[in-house]
Amino acid sequence: MDYVYGPGRNHLFVPGPVNIPEPVLRAMNRNNEDYRSPAVPAMTKILLEDVKKIFKTTTGTPFMIPTTGTGAWESALTNTLSPGDRIVSFLIGQFSLLWIDQQQRLNFKVDVVESEWGQGANLDILASKLAEDTAHTIKAICIVHNETATGVTNNLAQVRRILDEYRHPALFLVDGVSSICALDFRMDEWGVDVALTGSQKALSLPTGIGIVCASPKALEASKTAKSVRVFFDWNDYLKFYKLGTYWPYTPSIQLLYGLRTALDLIFEEGLDNVIARHSRLGKATRLAVEAWGLKNCTQSEEWFSDTVTAVLVPPYIDSTEIVRRAWKRYNLSLGLGLNKIAGKVFRIGHLGNLNELQLLGCLAGVEMVLRDVGYPVKLGSGVAAASAYFQNNTPLIPSRI
Amino acid sequence: MDYVYGPGRNHLFVPGPVNIPEPVLRAMNRNNEDYRSPAVPAMTKILLEDVKKIFKTTTGTPFMIPTTGTGAWESALTNTLSPGDRIVSFLIGQFSLLWIDQQQRLNFKVDVVESEWGQGANLDILASKLAEDTAHTIKAICIVHNETATGVTNNLAQVRRILDEYRHPALFLVDGVSSICALDFRMDEWGVDVALTGSQKALSLPTGIGIVCASPKALEASKTAKSVRVFFDWNDYLKFYKLGTYWPYTPSIQLLYGLRTALDLIFEEGLDNVIARHSRLGKATRLAVEAWGLKNCTQSEEWFSDTVTAVLVPPYIDSTEIVRRAWKRYNLSLGLGLNKIAGKVFRIGHLGNLNELQLLGCLAGVEMVLRDVGYPVKLGSGVAAASAYFQNNTPLIPSRI
Amino acid sequence: MDYVYGPGRNHLFVPGPVNIPEPVLRAMNRNNEDYRSPAVPAMTKILLEDVKKIFKTTTGTPFMIPTTGTGAWESALTNTLSPGDRIVSFLIGQFSLLWIDQQQRLNFKVDVVESEWGQGANLDILASKLAEDTAHTIKAICIVHNETATGVTNNLAQVRRILDEYRHPALFLVDGVSSICALDFRMDEWGVDVALTGSQKALSLPTGIGIVCASPKALEASKTAKSVRVFFDWNDYLKFYKLGTYWPYTPSIQLLYGLRTALDLIFEEGLDNVIARHSRLGKATRLAVEAWGLKNCTQSEEWFSDTVTAVLVPPYIDSTEIVRRAWKRYNLSLGLGLNKIAGKVFRIGHLGNLNELQLLGCLAGVEMVLRDVGYPVKLGSGVAAASAYFQNNTPLIPSRI
Amino acid sequence: MDYVYGPGRNHLFVPGPVNIPEPVLRAMNRNNEDYRSPAVPAMTKILLEDVKKIFKTTTGTPFMIPTTGTGAWESALTNTLSPGDRIVSFLIGQFSLLWIDQQQRLNFKVDVVESEWGQGANLDILASKLAEDTAHTIKAICIVHNETATGVTNNLAQVRRILDEYRHPALFLVDGVSSICALDFRMDEWGVDVALTGSQKALSLPTGIGIVCASPKALEASKTAKSVRVFFDWNDYLKFYKLGTYWPYTPSIQLLYGLRTALDLIFEEGLDNVIARHSRLGKATRLAVEAWGLKNCTQSEEWFSDTVTAVLVPPYIDSTEIVRRAWKRYNLSLGLGLNKIAGKVFRIGHLGNLNELQLLGCLAGVEMVLRDVGYPVKLGSGVAAASAYFQNNTPLIPSRI
Repeated sequence: MDYVYGPGRNHLFVPGPVNIPEPVLRAMNRNNEDYRSPAVPAMTKILLEDVKKIFKTTTGTPFMIPTTGTGAWESALTNTLSPGDRIVSFLIGQFSLLWIDQQQRLNFKVDVVESEWGQGANLDILASKLAEDTAHTIKAICIVHNETATGVTNNLAQVRRILDEYRHPALFLVDGVSSICALDFRMDEWGVDVALTGSQKALSLPTGIGIVCASPKALEASKTAKSVRVFFDWNDYLKFYKLGTYWPYTPSIQLLYGLRTALDLIFEEGLDNVIARHSRLGKATRLAVEAWGLKNCTQSEEWFSDTVTAVLVPPYIDSTEIVRRAWKRYNLSLGLGLNKIAGKVFRIGHLGNLNELQLLGCLAGVEMVLRDVGYPVKLGSGVAAASAYFQNNTPLIPSRI
Repeated sequence: MDYVYGPGRNHLFVPGPVNIPEPVLRAMNRNNEDYRSPAVPAMTKILLEDVKKIFKTTTGTPFMIPTTGTGAWESALTNTLSPGDRIVSFLIGQFSLLWIDQQQRLNFKVDVVESEWGQGANLDILASKLAEDTAHTIKAICIVHNETATGVTNNLAQVRRILDEYRHPALFLVDGVSSICALDFRMDEWGVDVALTGSQKALSLPTGIGIVCASPKALEASKTAKSVRVFFDWNDYLKFYKLGTYWPYTPSIQLLYGLRTALDLIFEEGLDNVIARHSRLGKATRLAVEAWGLKNCTQSEEWFSDTVTAVLVPPYIDSTEIVRRAWKRYNLSLGLGLNKIAGKVFRIGHLGNLNELQLLGCLAGVEMVLRDVGYPVKLGSGVAAASAYFQNNTPLIPSRI
Repeated sequence: MDYVYGPGRNHLFVPGPVNIPEPVLRAMNRNNEDYRSPAVPAMTKILLEDVKKIFKTTTGTPFMIPTTGTGAWESALTNTLSPGDRIVSFLIGQFSLLWIDQQQRLNFKVDVVESEWGQGANLDILASKLAEDTAHTIKAICIVHNETATGVTNNLAQVRRILDEYRHPALFLVDGVSSICALDFRMDEWGVDVALTGSQKALSLPTGIGIVCASPKALEASKTAKSVRVFFDWNDYLKFYKLGTYWPYTPSIQLLYGLRTALDLIFEEGLDNVIARHSRLGKATRLAVEAWGLKNCTQSEEWFSDTVTAVLVPPYIDSTEIVRRAWKRYNLSLGLGLNKIAGKVFRIGHLGNLNELQLLGCLAGVEMVLRDVGYPVKLGSGVAAASAYFQNNTPLIPSRI
Repeated sequence: MDYVYGPGRNHLFVPGPVNIPEPVLRAMNRNNEDYRSPAVPAMTKILLEDVKKIFKTTTGTPFMIPTTGTGAWESALTNTLSPGDRIVSFLIGQFSLLWIDQQQRLNFKVDVVESEWGQGANLDILASKLAEDTAHTIKAICIVHNETATGVTNNLAQVRRILDEYRHPALFLVDGVSSICALDFRMDEWGVDVALTGSQKALSLPTGIGIVCASPKALEASKTAKSVRVFFDWNDYLKFYKLGTYWPYTPSIQLLYGLRTALDLIFEEGLDNVIARHSRLGKATRLAVEAWGLKNCTQSEEWFSDTVTAVLVPPYIDSTEIVRRAWKRYNLSLGLGLNKIAGKVFRIGHLGNLNELQLLGCLAGVEMVLRDVGYPVKLGSGVAAASAYFQNNTPLIPSRI
């Protein structure tokens, strides 16, 4: 028996890894295969084409690396930059902090632009830095699209506008780990040079593929980038792309079939419908938080995230206890507050293959936990607010009309 | 892609087939095996011992027949009775009706004791019939423990008391399809002669095993019962039990392993805890129905069912539309009203491997559907009532303390 | 850990249940569903059409009953015949014996036509019985297409010719359990009235569906057949077919999806190619047996079975020991000799989703076991004979050309 | 339908990824989980202890990195060495070549000791290099235990003896990708400083975990090693080991459960029995090659590999055609010849969860393919040689005695 077994389903509402749909579990339920047979390259070729759609790019080149988001970060950086390069990076929460830590350890000179946790990237500072940088010493702008620790979504279109305004050639590198396939993301339109995500996030797969997509400009930069890299080197992939065998080393057969099905599900639903669904789930969650009389960690509407909501708890409550109790009593998995906001927030992940009733079950659970820990929430209040919104906005399931 | 695909989980709240726990799905994910090897009999032997525990019998003999509940009914009847035998049977809903239909087609003389749908078996009539039957012409009493169509639980202990009062030797045959493993059921204590259930109900397996358990008295009766039977004949099983090979024909290997895991899960949780969990789920559902201002099809508390609740809708609403819309818009599967109460009730199945938050998600969904079809429910009202109850009564998950 | 665990794959060569292909395992790896939703009937409707193809019938009506082959037998008999009806039935091995036993217990008057085990049905006796029966007292001819105990395939076309010759109206009932989907079977062309198979045989599924297909004449007969039946009654199915809900009681959701995939695999390969593959596997097995210097239990080429080969062992060897040792030492599952030929034969099942190299692994294993038990086989001899045949006759896999 | 579908099982005999046992597939068939719950660390803690057993170390520290063997290589090197460090590395085939390429790209000064492909590492040269290196400028010896391209196993005990003889402090880094869990490997006894393997090899899992095990000396070296690393940095793991949360970034939940089961299977069989089984499979394969009149690519018995056999084909045959045809006609996956020996050898991988009859099926298939491409092999000859050996040497399966 599993150590964690509890009756019924686990209600998984951490912001990753997320719930895997049954068709994807089925697709991955298979033996290994020879990845040098004609079959795996044939499948890979189509996957590489299809995966571009989730980035909304036609000109990008994707790499499906057997790694996590952290590895995808490293691949994005080391393939485009050289040690000592100056980059601008925004610190707005735990995951941007970790990326910045990586950037520094990889020996880039990082201009860290810090915001209060709960706020988005300070783009005014970006503008002033670019304005000053007439010598183009800034080689890249690094930004998380969605900060998973605080539930803050940055405005990437605005970053592009600022870059364009100053005609600055810096590369535009985006961590889309908790956004791509869930939030509106437009690689080509926004001129993103490297975008990346992980399979265990909105794609709703197990961990194991870091998907990195490079613009032509990023590919060009990779030719001169001097950062040492082997495992994460795009050139090794490009060499095998040309050969038509695609893989410099062994991929996970199961994840390839899983990705095939995950994409099929997304395309069947329609990527824009997927994004609209996340918008509904995010909005409903925020309405519930409001109804509970609690504050969103995200300080302004402009940054509200549709994939994760960090909820501030009153000072007399330890949010860690909320997460622990949710798991122990209601089989509900919530996200902890991290680092600076440990104990102060708990997080509801609402991304991936998820629907309205799953979220309402979670919200009902949060209400009970809140009472368990002494916060006098009115039971049903958050659920009522969320379901009022859902009842007005949820479309019929197209396959069932 | 599946015809029915919708994003996220299907919320399965029909009163069978019910949700299968992941450990059971895993256990069944296997190739076939030679059922004449030493391994399958070894497993079967232990299963036959363990399956007796869910009937709370030490003296009964179980048969795990590759069939459905309907087949289990037939096995119970044909092994114990002869054509022309007089039996008393209670008609209180669609499933008791179907069983009676089967009894009549099998050529028994059935004294049908009918109640209004929503009421339990009329045991006063039973008493008077037994009182009159000094010649013991009544050979069996047939009763459903829990009528799945109306959400009515009959009082089996009372049936036994009446039989004892009149010292009547009639066999006591019980359909426990939607009760065993979920409601309090005591084969030995209540002197039940044949009890039966189906794998797809509270055991939370796929359809495919009809489990029939026979008391020593029932086994004795089978020696003289003249009903024609082959596939359902207990004697064929008993012959193979003696040989130690256990199977007169090919069992489903997958279901055997699934049953093994299903029982492990039930024993790990504790059968009494499983029953207590169903009691919580049933009570919470009824509190929600009340909060919605709707009526339970079950007319009196004494018959309330902890595995299924049939909810009466106002006359201006067609309950079929509720079920249809729940499925089409919210990926929620509810039970239809059947036969006499078609269009008048919808049913919430709350049996099997299910927890509190799953049910609350369902209840939130029902609220939205009710508004969709024009019933002015206050959103969150049922969820609030149910979760208030849960918050006071749900134990910690033992494996996580 | 499983009681039976051994390193590597189990080599499953019993004549049922057989190896399940991975795509079928995947398809069945799923939660239950509401079988009263629109989805399950929609799938069932197409399945009922498609399943007719494996019977090669356009006029037949199929029933997919949640039962085993034994139940399918009972359904075939009780729906078409009345107690006391005279039938002709051929006893040529254990499974025809069991069917005859069932026929007798169901109160038909059975003219048993016995052959030596290893021989096919004696059709001369059939001819003489029909010739004599000018009053048409014989209501049905019951015959197994392929006797699984002895590896004997009967000539069904010849049965039809004899029936036609005497213009005899007897129903023609066929057990196709170990033939349909593997041997050439033509329901319409041969005028078969009821044909049946089980899911765990050449369809390569788990046990659990007995598929029975009835000709218009059989359906007509069911209107007047007086055998008592409920669970197995075709009329209950026909009623639900008309309603478009298809199921009188709960089907196995998993098996329906499994059947869908099993049929897809068969149709993709091509039913005639599937049959040709079985022909190759059967021929190769017989060549191996010959090379080993052993005798086929089947006494004449006209009856050779392409789905199972029963191999006679020398009198100084107990075939049970061969089966036991194969399992204990080589993870190889062979079929036991049954009843009259227990200890005298072991059986190699070569049906279902199986290919050439799997069989060669089995044959190599049998060779080692034969030496283990003291039969001086030349190692490699059977494999050589079989692979010489395969090397000349195996087509390229079309999906890989 | 899969592009590659063929009837029956795929016979997977590439030297990785290898066949996954059913119990492991089952264990991995699950939804994601919160890796920050108490359950995942609890499981991880035990896994880290257990995984040390497959390295035969009690003093080593293992890291289970979400990557492939290539990433594991990089982790081994960058954590222990600094750019410019001199290392000795042996080039004996394609995989040692790739590792050397990585070493050079990571800016180490590599003394490449090349052997003819088919020979093992030239340890005489190692001895002379160490003898000369009194200044201890050599920082590490890098060696593949088993070269997967040529089927050559190096003598690691001898490497240790040489190091000891010269009292040389160089680190001893071993690629055990195609050896650990299959060949005799003794980290502590042989004084290996870093050993590594990949999940998709003898552990018989999907690709996705690079397991790296570091000796105390290697851990010490990591404190001063100046190679740039983040994703592969052991320190990040060690930090989380101390915290008891174990994971610096998201692991694959499925692979953790898979690894748990894979280890359980290995421990149940007994690691030494697993190694003995590989020894049988290797020996039998070589006997078959000999019987076919073909040459082993491995030039001397001392280097024979028990996990992969590279078979030289006559000059008039293109081995690529053998691999292609095996896949297209017999559903048999063999390994290609790589680089220098492309077209000249084909490879039979016989590692992981595999048994005797599986291998015999493969060998029978190879025989047919050889004839297909014009090599006049005597059918059955290799199978006979292999099975003669098996029949004398295969133990009973303990769980079945």
